[in-house]
Amino acid sequence: MTTPQTPSQPSPVTTPQAPPAPRPGCKLQWYEIEDPNSPQLDALAKRFSLHPLQIEDCRHRPQRAKYEEHDLYLFSVIKQIHNDTELVFSDVDVFIGKDFLITVTQGHSEVVDRVHRRIQEDGTDRLDKALYFLMDSVVDEYSPVIDMIAEETSDLEDTVLLDPGPDKLQTIFRLKRKLIEFRRIASSMREVVNAFMRKERGLIGDDLDPYLRDVYDHLVRTIDLIETYRDLLAGSLDIYLSAVANRTNNVMKVLAVWGTIALPLVIITGFFGMNLKLPWEDSPHGVLYAIAAMLLSTVSVLTYFKRKGWY
Amino acid sequence: MTTPQTPSQPSPVTTPQAPPAPRPGCKLQWYEIEDPNSPQLDALAKRFSLHPLQIEDCRHRPQRAKYEEHDLYLFSVIKQIHNDTELVFSDVDVFIGKDFLITVTQGHSEVVDRVHRRIQEDGTDRLDKALYFLMDSVVDEYSPVIDMIAEETSDLEDTVLLDPGPDKLQTIFRLKRKLIEFRRIASSMREVVNAFMRKERGLIGDDLDPYLRDVYDHLVRTIDLIETYRDLLAGSLDIYLSAVANRTNNVMKVLAVWGTIALPLVIITGFFGMNLKLPWEDSPHGVLYAIAAMLLSTVSVLTYFKRKGWY
Amino acid sequence: MTTPQTPSQPSPVTTPQAPPAPRPGCKLQWYEIEDPNSPQLDALAKRFSLHPLQIEDCRHRPQRAKYEEHDLYLFSVIKQIHNDTELVFSDVDVFIGKDFLITVTQGHSEVVDRVHRRIQEDGTDRLDKALYFLMDSVVDEYSPVIDMIAEETSDLEDTVLLDPGPDKLQTIFRLKRKLIEFRRIASSMREVVNAFMRKERGLIGDDLDPYLRDVYDHLVRTIDLIETYRDLLAGSLDIYLSAVANRTNNVMKVLAVWGTIALPLVIITGFFGMNLKLPWEDSPHGVLYAIAAMLLSTVSVLTYFKRKGWY
Amino acid sequence: MTTPQTPSQPSPVTTPQAPPAPRPGCKLQWYEIEDPNSPQLDALAKRFSLHPLQIEDCRHRPQRAKYEEHDLYLFSVIKQIHNDTELVFSDVDVFIGKDFLITVTQGHSEVVDRVHRRIQEDGTDRLDKALYFLMDSVVDEYSPVIDMIAEETSDLEDTVLLDPGPDKLQTIFRLKRKLIEFRRIASSMREVVNAFMRKERGLIGDDLDPYLRDVYDHLVRTIDLIETYRDLLAGSLDIYLSAVANRTNNVMKVLAVWGTIALPLVIITGFFGMNLKLPWEDSPHGVLYAIAAMLLSTVSVLTYFKRKGWY
Amino acid sequence: MTTPQTPSQPSPVTTPQAPPAPRPGCKLQWYEIEDPNSPQLDALAKRFSLHPLQIEDCRHRPQRAKYEEHDLYLFSVIKQIHNDTELVFSDVDVFIGKDFLITVTQGHSEVVDRVHRRIQEDGTDRLDKALYFLMDSVVDEYSPVIDMIAEETSDLEDTVLLDPGPDKLQTIFRLKRKLIEFRRIASSMREVVNAFMRKERGLIGDDLDPYLRDVYDHLVRTIDLIETYRDLLAGSLDIYLSAVANRTNNVMKVLAVWGTIALPLVIITGFFGMNLKLPWEDSPHGVLYAIAAMLLSTVSVLTYFKRKGWY
Repeated sequence: MTTPQTPSQPSPVTTPQAPPAPRPGCKLQWYEIEDPNSPQLDALAKRFSLHPLQIEDCRHRPQRAKYEEHDLYLFSVIKQIHNDTELVFSDVDVFIGKDFLITVTQGHSEVVDRVHRRIQEDGTDRLDKALYFLMDSVVDEYSPVIDMIAEETSDLEDTVLLDPGPDKLQTIFRLKRKLIEFRRIASSMREVVNAFMRKERGLIGDDLDPYLRDVYDHLVRTIDLIETYRDLLAGSLDIYLSAVANRTNNVMKVLAVWGTIALPLVIITGFFGMNLKLPWEDSPHGVLYAIAAMLLSTVSVLTYFKRKGWY
Repeated sequence: MTTPQTPSQPSPVTTPQAPPAPRPGCKLQWYEIEDPNSPQLDALAKRFSLHPLQIEDCRHRPQRAKYEEHDLYLFSVIKQIHNDTELVFSDVDVFIGKDFLITVTQGHSEVVDRVHRRIQEDGTDRLDKALYFLMDSVVDEYSPVIDMIAEETSDLEDTVLLDPGPDKLQTIFRLKRKLIEFRRIASSMREVVNAFMRKERGLIGDDLDPYLRDVYDHLVRTIDLIETYRDLLAGSLDIYLSAVANRTNNVMKVLAVWGTIALPLVIITGFFGMNLKLPWEDSPHGVLYAIAAMLLSTVSVLTYFKRKGWY
Repeated sequence: MTTPQTPSQPSPVTTPQAPPAPRPGCKLQWYEIEDPNSPQLDALAKRFSLHPLQIEDCRHRPQRAKYEEHDLYLFSVIKQIHNDTELVFSDVDVFIGKDFLITVTQGHSEVVDRVHRRIQEDGTDRLDKALYFLMDSVVDEYSPVIDMIAEETSDLEDTVLLDPGPDKLQTIFRLKRKLIEFRRIASSMREVVNAFMRKERGLIGDDLDPYLRDVYDHLVRTIDLIETYRDLLAGSLDIYLSAVANRTNNVMKVLAVWGTIALPLVIITGFFGMNLKLPWEDSPHGVLYAIAAMLLSTVSVLTYFKRKGWY
Repeated sequence: MTTPQTPSQPSPVTTPQAPPAPRPGCKLQWYEIEDPNSPQLDALAKRFSLHPLQIEDCRHRPQRAKYEEHDLYLFSVIKQIHNDTELVFSDVDVFIGKDFLITVTQGHSEVVDRVHRRIQEDGTDRLDKALYFLMDSVVDEYSPVIDMIAEETSDLEDTVLLDPGPDKLQTIFRLKRKLIEFRRIASSMREVVNAFMRKERGLIGDDLDPYLRDVYDHLVRTIDLIETYRDLLAGSLDIYLSAVANRTNNVMKVLAVWGTIALPLVIITGFFGMNLKLPWEDSPHGVLYAIAAMLLSTVSVLTYFKRKGWY
Repeated sequence: MTTPQTPSQPSPVTTPQAPPAPRPGCKLQWYEIEDPNSPQLDALAKRFSLHPLQIEDCRHRPQRAKYEEHDLYLFSVIKQIHNDTELVFSDVDVFIGKDFLITVTQGHSEVVDRVHRRIQEDGTDRLDKALYFLMDSVVDEYSPVIDMIAEETSDLEDTVLLDPGPDKLQTIFRLKRKLIEFRRIASSMREVVNAFMRKERGLIGDDLDPYLRDVYDHLVRTIDLIETYRDLLAGSLDIYLSAVANRTNNVMKVLAVWGTIALPLVIITGFFGMNLKLPWEDSPHGVLYAIAAMLLSTVSVLTYFKRKGWY
C-alpha cells in the first residue's frame, strides 16, 4: 500500500543527515547504502530528488527486477544471486544520474567488492562504466548456478532409469522449482538490460552499447539453457514414471509366473490328499506317478510362458 | 440482452430524485451507490449523461473488468476480492468525470472505507487521487490471498509425497480452480490499469503516472506469481501420481515376495499330505526332513529376491 | 469447387422472379429467405449485384463465420445455435446495404422472430439497428449453453472422485468435444463482430458502436469461460485417472493384506496335515497348539501392516 | 548444395531445344512439363530468364510450398495430394509471367486435367484465371482426405472405450502422424495463397481477389479442422489409457474378490485336514459344521465387499 | 566476465606479428585462423580494428550463433556440425569487411575445405560469395543428421509397440535430447541468416539475396522437421507407456484367470481331505464324483470369463 505524499507535507521521520561518503580509494561519486532503512538514504533522496515510491521499493524487498526513467536519473532494481545451493536472490537497487551513482543493498555485497576491484584494474572514472561492471558481475554470478543445475540434471538422467526411488522424484521437483524461480528472475533481468540498451537517455555512453549487448546475450543464453534444462527435467520425470511402470510390470510377471506354476501342484497334492478311494492308493509307485504329474504340469506352464516371451 | 433505447423514449421506471449526497466529512464530489438498483443511479445517469449500457452493466453483475472512454467521463469495472478463503470477487463500477466520481457497489464495501481513511490522511481534494487510492486498495487486497495460496501449495509439496491421500488430490484441484479464476480476473484488471495509464484523456493528472505504474507492476507481479504457483501445483499433481504409482509398486512387491515364499511351502506340506505311499512315512525324523525342505525353499527364494534387489 | 462466371454469361438456372416481400408489419426493407435454394435469392442477387461466390456460400452450408466488404454492401455469415443439448450451429447469411437487408436461413429461425419483436418494441426503422438486434440475439443464445456446460462440469468435479466410472469418462470427453467446437465458432464470431466495429464503411451508424462493443465483450467473455471450462475439464480427467489409480492401489492392498494373512495359516494347516510322524499327533491339545500358532501368525502380520501404515 | 553460376558461364548440359507446345485445344500460353529433368525446362528457363535456383527447386523434390517474386514473373511451389489413403503429397511448380504460365509436375497430374476442363467450361483466355483454377482444384482435393480422417477419428472415439486393443493405439498414432504432416503442408500452402493475395504485382487481376480469398478461407478452414481432429485424437488417447487403467482395475478386483472368498475356505478345509485330534472328528455331522463355517465365511466376505461397493 | 579496455591502454600480451597469408591458390583476401589463441588473430584485430569483445568471443567457445554489425565490418558466429552420431557443434567465427574475410575455427575444418573447392569450381573472386558458400555448406551438413534422426524415430515407432523394453525408452530420451539441442542451434542460425538478408549494409551483393533466402528456407525446413520429429517422438513415448500398461493388464489377466480356475479346485480337494466323516468316503466312485465337481467348477469359471470377453 503506497500513499503518494503531497509535496507540501514535510517528511516526519527523516532528520537531516549527511549522505554517506564514497568508499576510500574510489574516485567515483558512488554512494553505497548497506542498510535500506538508514536515514542516509532519505538524505540522498532529498538531495537528488529521488521519487518516494522508489525509496519505498528499496525498503520493501524483494521487488521484481525493474527499470524506471526520470528526468534526471534512472532507477533500476537488479537481482543478485546470493547462495548458490539454495538459489536465494536479493535486490540491488541502483540510481544513476549525471554525477551520482547510488546502490542500495541489504547488508554487505561481495559482488560490489568485485566491481570495485574491476574499477581499480581498469582505472576508469566513469559512473556508467561502474554500472556496467555491476550488471556484468551480477549476471556472471548466474553461470555457476546454471552449471550446477546442469550437472544435477545430467546425474539424474543417468541414474533414474536404473534406480527410480522417491529421492529421485524429490530431486526432480526441487530442480524444477529452482528453474521456475530462476527463469522468472532471469527474464525480468533481460527486460531490464534491454531497457538500458534502448532508452538510456544519454546517461550511459554509446561506446558501452556492445558491452551491454554482451550482458544481454549472456542473459538470453542463460534463459535458453534454463528452458533446455526444464525440457530435460520433464524428460527425467517421464523416465521415472516409465521405470516405475516397468518395475510394477516385472513384479507382476514374477508373481504371475510363480502362481501359475504353483497352483497346479497344489491341486495335484490336494487331489492325492483326499480321504476318498484314490487310484494308486496302495501302489508303492503312486508317489512317483504323482511326482510325474507335477513335473508334467510345471513343464507345460514353463513352455506356455516361453511361447508368450515372458522370460 | 441489451436494447438500445431511442433517446426520445421517456424511461418509465425512474422517478426524478435527488442524487445521493457525498459521505459526511468528505470534501470530494464522490457519489457512492451501494444498491445498484436504486433510482439514485438513474438520477446520476441523467445528470451526467451516462450511457444506458453502462448503467445496465452496473445492474447485471458480475461483469468482466473493463475500461471505456466517453467524451466527458471514463467508465470502468474493477474487481474487488471479498472473502479470501472462498475467492469471491465482486464488481466496483466507477465513473470519473471532470467534477464527479461515482462508485457503484453491491452492499457496503470495506475497501471504500479504507479509501476514505487514506483520503483523510492525505488531505487531498483531487478526484483522480481518490480513484488511484481505490484501485491501489483493491489490488492490495489481492496479496494476502496470493500468500495464502502460496502457503497451501508449499504445504502440499511437503506432505503429498509421504501421504498421497485423496484429500490431497482435492486440495490440488481446489487450488488449481482458484488460480484459474484468479488469473482471469487479475489479467483483465491489468488491462484496465494499463488503459488508465495510456489513455486517460486529461482526467487523471500526469503526476499520478508513477503511482498507476506501481499498481500495474503489482498486478504484473501477481500474475507472475499465479503462473508460478500453477506450475508448482502441476508439479504437485505429478508427485501425487508418482507417489501412488510407487505405492502400488510396493504393495505388489510385498504380495509377490510373500506369495513366492509361501507357495513352495504349501506344495511341500501338500506333498506329504498325500494319501499315497510316501518316503519317510514311518520314519520318526520324517517331519524334520520336511521342515528342512521348507527352510531350504525359503532361503532360496529370499536369496533370489536379494539378488534382484527387491529389499 | 467454385467457378467464377464471366459476367457476359447469362445464368441458366435463374428465371426472373419477384424478390420476397418484407414481413407484414415490418417497415424495414428486410428480405428474409428461408430456403437458400429458392430462386428468390437469385432475383435479389441480380437486383443488388451480390457476388456469385457469396450466393454460393449461402447455398453450401455450413460456412465458417465470416465478414466481407464490397463497394455497395457488406456480407457476413453468423452462426446461430439451434439445439442446445446437442450443440448444433447453423448459418445465418446477412447482406446489408444502404437500403436493404437480406438474411438467408435454412428453414424458419426463432432468433429472427425475436429480432422482429425487439424492432417493434423499439419502434426503430433503421436497418443497422435491426442488424445489431440480430447479432445481439444470436450471441445471447450462447449463454444458456455455456451455463449448461458449466453445470455439467461442476457436477462432474463433485462426483468423479468418489465414483470414477466409465460413464464419467464419456461425459468428460463429450463435454470436451463440445467445448472444442464451441470455441471454434465463438472465436470466428468474435472476429466477425470485430470486423463490423472497425470497418463498417458508413453502413452502420456510429451511435451503435458501444452496442457492437457490448456484443464483442459478450463474445470475449464467452471464449474466456470456454477456456476456463476446458481447463477445469482437463482437471476432471486428472481427477478421474488419479481416482482410478487410487482404487487399483486399494484393491491391491486388500488382496495383499488378505493373502499375507491367509498364506501362513494355509501352511500351518498343511503342516499338520502331513502323513508323517508329527509332534502333538496324539496329544488331545494338539489342535489348540496349532490354533495358537495360527493366531500368533495372524497377529504378527497385522502388526507388520499396522507399522507400514496400510490401514 | 546450390551453386550460383556466374552468368558468363555457358550451361554445359542444356542443348538448345524448342519449348513444349501448349496442349491441343488450349488457347493459353501454358507450358506443361511432366518430366522435371527434361531439357525443355532448360529451354523455357533460358527463354523467360527463370532463376537457376528455381529450376533446381523443380528438380530436387519435394520442396516446401513457397512463393517468390521476380521482376518479370512469380514462382510458386504448391502441394497437390496424390493418394488419399497414404497421404502422399507432390509438388506442382508454377511460373507465371505476363504472357506465359509454366507448370512442372513429376508425371501426369489429374488435377491439371481437371483445370483444363474448367478452362474450357469457362471459355476464358486469361492466364491468371488458369492459375486460380489450378490452386482451387489442388486445395479442393484436400477436403475428401480431411473427411476420411474425420470419419476414422469418429469411429475411434466410438469404439476405443469398449474395446481398447493395441490396434486402436496404432490407428491413433497413424492418424496423428497424418495430421502432423497434413498441418505442415496446409500451413505452408496458406502462406503461399496469402502471398498471392497481397503481393501479386499486377500479374493477377483484381477481380480474382475474392476468388483467391475463397481458396484462402478454404485452407484456413482445413487447418482449423486439422487442429480440431488433433485435439479429438489426443482425447482418444486419453480414453484409451483410461480404459486400460479401468480394465486393469477390474481384473484386479475380480482376482481380489475371488482370492478373498477362497482363502478362508482353503484354511477351513486345511484345518479339518490336520492329522491331530480334531473337534467333531467322529461326529457324523462334523462335515455339516465345517460346511456351515465355510458358508459363514463366504457370506461375511461378500457382505464386506458389498459395503465397499465393489460390485 | 568481460572487461572493456580503455583504448589508451596498450594490450600487454600481443606482440606485433604478421597476419596469416591466404591459402595457396586462393585469390581472395581470406585469412583462416585455425587456433583461436594464436597471436595472428590479435594482429588481424589490430589491423582491421576488430572489437575486443568479439576477439574474446572467438576465444571463449562455444558461443551462441550471433550476428553483429560494425561500421566497417560484420561479425558472425555460425555453428558447424562436427560429428553426426554424437551431435557435436563447433563455432566458426566470421569477420567480413570490404576487402577482407576472416574465419576462426578450432582446428582444421572440413567444411572450409569444401568451400575452397566450391570457390575454385565457380572461379569467383568475391568475398561475399565465399561467405555464402560457407554458410550454405555449413547448413547443408545439417541434413544427413536430420535424416539419421528421422530413420531412428521411424524404427522406434515400428518396434516400440511390440517390444517396449527399457532400451527403447533410452533411445527415445536420447533422441529427444538431441532434438532439443538441435532446435536451439538451428533457430539461432536462422536468426543469423535472416539478419544477413535484412541488414547487410552493402557488404553483400544484392544478387546473392535469392541464395541467402535459399539457405534461410533450408533452415526453416530443418526446424520444421525437428518439430515434426519431436511430435512423433512424444507419440513414441505415449506408445511405450500404453504398451507397458497393456502388458501389465495382460499379465494380470493371466494371473486372475488362472487363480480363479485353481482356487475352487484347491477348495474341493481340501474339502475331501478333511479328517471328518465325509460323503462318499467309502464309495469306490467317490473320486469320480470329486473329479466331476472339479470339472464343473472349471467349466463354470471358463464360461464366466468367456462372457466377460477376457480371452
